[in-house]
Amino acid sequence: MFAVEVRDHIMIAHSLKGEVFGPAQAMHGATFVVDVTFFRETLSADNIVVDMGRAHDVLKRVLGPINYANLDEVFPGEVTTTEYLCRHIHTEIAKAAREGGLGPGSDGLSALRVTLNESHVAKAWYEAAI
Amino acid sequence: MFAVEVRDHIMIAHSLKGEVFGPAQAMHGATFVVDVTFFRETLSADNIVVDMGRAHDVLKRVLGPINYANLDEVFPGEVTTTEYLCRHIHTEIAKAAREGGLGPGSDGLSALRVTLNESHVAKAWYEAAI
Amino acid sequence: MFAVEVRDHIMIAHSLKGEVFGPAQAMHGATFVVDVTFFRETLSADNIVVDMGRAHDVLKRVLGPINYANLDEVFPGEVTTTEYLCRHIHTEIAKAAREGGLGPGSDGLSALRVTLNESHVAKAWYEAAI
Amino acid sequence: MFAVEVRDHIMIAHSLKGEVFGPAQAMHGATFVVDVTFFRETLSADNIVVDMGRAHDVLKRVLGPINYANLDEVFPGEVTTTEYLCRHIHTEIAKAAREGGLGPGSDGLSALRVTLNESHVAKAWYEAAI
Amino acid sequence: MFAVEVRDHIMIAHSLKGEVFGPAQAMHGATFVVDVTFFRETLSADNIVVDMGRAHDVLKRVLGPINYANLDEVFPGEVTTTEYLCRHIHTEIAKAAREGGLGPGSDGLSALRVTLNESHVAKAWYEAAI
Amino acid sequence: MFAVEVRDHIMIAHSLKGEVFGPAQAMHGATFVVDVTFFRETLSADNIVVDMGRAHDVLKRVLGPINYANLDEVFPGEVTTTEYLCRHIHTEIAKAAREGGLGPGSDGLSALRVTLNESHVAKAWYEAAI
Repeated sequence: MFAVEVRDHIMIAHSLKGEVFGPAQAMHGATFVVDVTFFRETLSADNIVVDMGRAHDVLKRVLGPINYANLDEVFPGEVTTTEYLCRHIHTEIAKAAREGGLGPGSDGLSALRVTLNESHVAKAWYEAAI
Repeated sequence: MFAVEVRDHIMIAHSLKGEVFGPAQAMHGATFVVDVTFFRETLSADNIVVDMGRAHDVLKRVLGPINYANLDEVFPGEVTTTEYLCRHIHTEIAKAAREGGLGPGSDGLSALRVTLNESHVAKAWYEAAI
Repeated sequence: MFAVEVRDHIMIAHSLKGEVFGPAQAMHGATFVVDVTFFRETLSADNIVVDMGRAHDVLKRVLGPINYANLDEVFPGEVTTTEYLCRHIHTEIAKAAREGGLGPGSDGLSALRVTLNESHVAKAWYEAAI
Repeated sequence: MFAVEVRDHIMIAHSLKGEVFGPAQAMHGATFVVDVTFFRETLSADNIVVDMGRAHDVLKRVLGPINYANLDEVFPGEVTTTEYLCRHIHTEIAKAAREGGLGPGSDGLSALRVTLNESHVAKAWYEAAI
Repeated sequence: MFAVEVRDHIMIAHSLKGEVFGPAQAMHGATFVVDVTFFRETLSADNIVVDMGRAHDVLKRVLGPINYANLDEVFPGEVTTTEYLCRHIHTEIAKAAREGGLGPGSDGLSALRVTLNESHVAKAWYEAAI
Repeated sequence: MFAVEVRDHIMIAHSLKGEVFGPAQAMHGATFVVDVTFFRETLSADNIVVDMGRAHDVLKRVLGPINYANLDEVFPGEVTTTEYLCRHIHTEIAKAAREGGLGPGSDGLSALRVTLNESHVAKAWYEAAI
C-alpha cells in the first residue's frame, strides 16, 4: 500500500455541549494542524499516489469555510469534537476526489485518513474508504 | 475507523541482558515519550472515541509505578526492551479500560496502540485488540 | 548563560479588532503551546537554573484563568494577539518568581522568555529581565 | 502487532518528467528524512522486533548509493518521485533482511514500511510484506 | 524584546565546490524548511510585531526565484552553503521590509533572523539588524 | 551572527542527590537529544561556520564516554542535572575546537551553545564564549 500525506491548519472557536467535556463546555478554541493521507494500492503512470500540489489545494479549499470561524455557528446543534471534524473533512475531501478535483489518476485512490493534531499531547483521526 | 491519541512520558533506568544489546547491556536509561492510541469503529453519543481527559489520567496512573524507576528492580529477571514496555503499558491500559476507568463509553473501544518514542531516531509500538 | 525551558498549552477563543487582522477579526481560536524559558548566569547550589517541577506547576497555575476561555471576556477591550499573550504570561510568571513561587534559588534568575507556538508555521515570543 | 522504527536521511537532486509535476520538472532537490518500520507479530527471544543497531546500519548502507546523488543519473529514465523512492528503499531493505543482514531473528519479520518525509507539510510511504 | 516567526520551505539542487564538502561536492539537493524571525523592541498600535499574513507572503515571494531551482545556475560561481542562503534570504527580506512590503508598522523592526533547517539533525541561521 | 547546529543523542542513568529533585532522587534515566550550536561573526572562505561533518564527528566523540552509562559512576559525587551536563559537553567541545578538531577555520568561532532536550516538555542549555 502506498500513501501520501499533506498538511495545513485551521484556527477555530467552539463550545462543546455535554458534561463529559468539563471546562471545554465553555467557549474556547483550537489550532488544528490537519494531515490528510491518501492511500492507493498501486502507483499511477506518473509514479504517484496523488498530485501533491492538487492535494494541498483541495485541502485548503475544504478548510476554507471552517477556518477563522466559530463552529457553533457553522454547525448549529452539533457537538464539534476533534473526531467529528476529522469525519467532516474526510467527507468533503472524498467528495472532491470523486468529483475529479484531485486530477485524472484520483479514481485509483482506495482510502483516506484525516488527522487533526490539537496540541503537542493530543490528536485524533478518521480513516475510511474513499 | 476513529482514533484518539494522548501523550505523556517517563524517565527510567535499566540494563538489557543479551549480547544483541551491545553497549545497552550496561546500566543506562531513557526518556520514553509515550503515545496511547484508542481505536473505535463508531463515535459515542458525545461524538468522541474516548474522554481525552480521562485518557490522560489513566495513562499517568499506569505510568506512575515505572516513572523515575530502575526497571531492573521493577521487573526483576525481565529484558525490559522498548517493545516489552509497549506491551506492558498496553496490558495495563486495556485492563483499566475494561474496569471502566475510561468512563461509560469505553466499552465501545476496539483496539489500543502504545508507542514509545525513545529518541529522535528510534521508536517502537504494540497494537492489539482491547 | 544557562537556560531551562518547560512546556504546557492552552486552548482559547478570541476575535482581533483591527483591519490588519483580516479574517482573524471574526471569532476564532487557537491552541497555544507555551514554552517558558528561565535564564540564569550561574547554577544554584543544586546545579540547576530552576526547579523544573515547580516551573511546570507555576506555568500551569498562570495559564489556568486563560485556558478554555474566551479572551474577549477575560481581557475586555484588549487586542489579544499572540504577542500580547506572551507578555501577559511573562508578567505573571515574573511576579510568581519574585514572590518565591519558584522556590529558594529563584532570586538568581536574570530573565524570562515566553514563546507561544500557534501552528506548525507561526509562533511569537517575548523576552525581558525578570 | 509489534513495530520498531528507525530514522536516517538523504540529500538528493532530481528532475521529474511529466506535466503533473509543474515546477518540479526542473532540476531541484530534497532532503528525505527516512523512517523504516519493521513489523513482527511476536517478539524474539530477546524481547525485540529487530536489532535496532543493525537496523540503523542496514538503512545507512541502503541509503549510501542514493545519498548526495543526482537521481537522474542513478535511475536513468525513471520518474523518481517520493513514492518511487519509498518502494526502492523497501525493496533493498527487504532484500537485506532476507539475506540475514538484520541478524538471526529477522526471519520473523512480517512487513516493512518506508516513509520519506520531504518537508514539514508533505510525506509519502510504502508498506508491504517483507 | 518581542519576536514573531513564520515558516515556509524550498526544494533545491546544488553542488558545493571545495574539499571541505566531501560527498556534497557532487550534484545533490535539499529541502530547506525556512523560519524567518522578526524582532521588535515594542509592539505596534495593533499589539503586533509584524502582520503575520504579510510576513508569510513576503517570505513566499522571496523564496520564489530559488524554489525548485538548481542553485548552481541561480548563483553562478558561488558556494551556496546553508549559511550563504540564510544571508541571501535575510538580505531580500530586509530589503522588502525597508521598501514597506511588510506594512505600515514594519519601520519599527529592529532585527531579522533566517533559519534553514536542512534535516532532522542539522540547521543554520543568520541574524542581523534589519 | 551566523550559527550552525548539529544533533545527536545519549541514553544515560543517574540519580540526583538533593531534596529539590523529589522522585528524581531515585535511580532513573533519560534520553538527551543533544544540539550543539556553533556561532561565528563572519563566514569562512568556504562560506561556512564550521564543517558540519566534523561537527557531527566531534559531538559523537565527546558523547562517547557518557553514552549508555550510569553517570553516578562517571561523575562520582556530582549532581548530574541536565544543566550540569550541558556545561560538561560545552567544555569538551570547546576544548576540541581549540585543539583543531573542528578543522582549519574553527579558530573563527566565537561561542558555543549546548542544548539537552530531555522530553517533549523540558530542555536546558548552556551558552558561552568558546
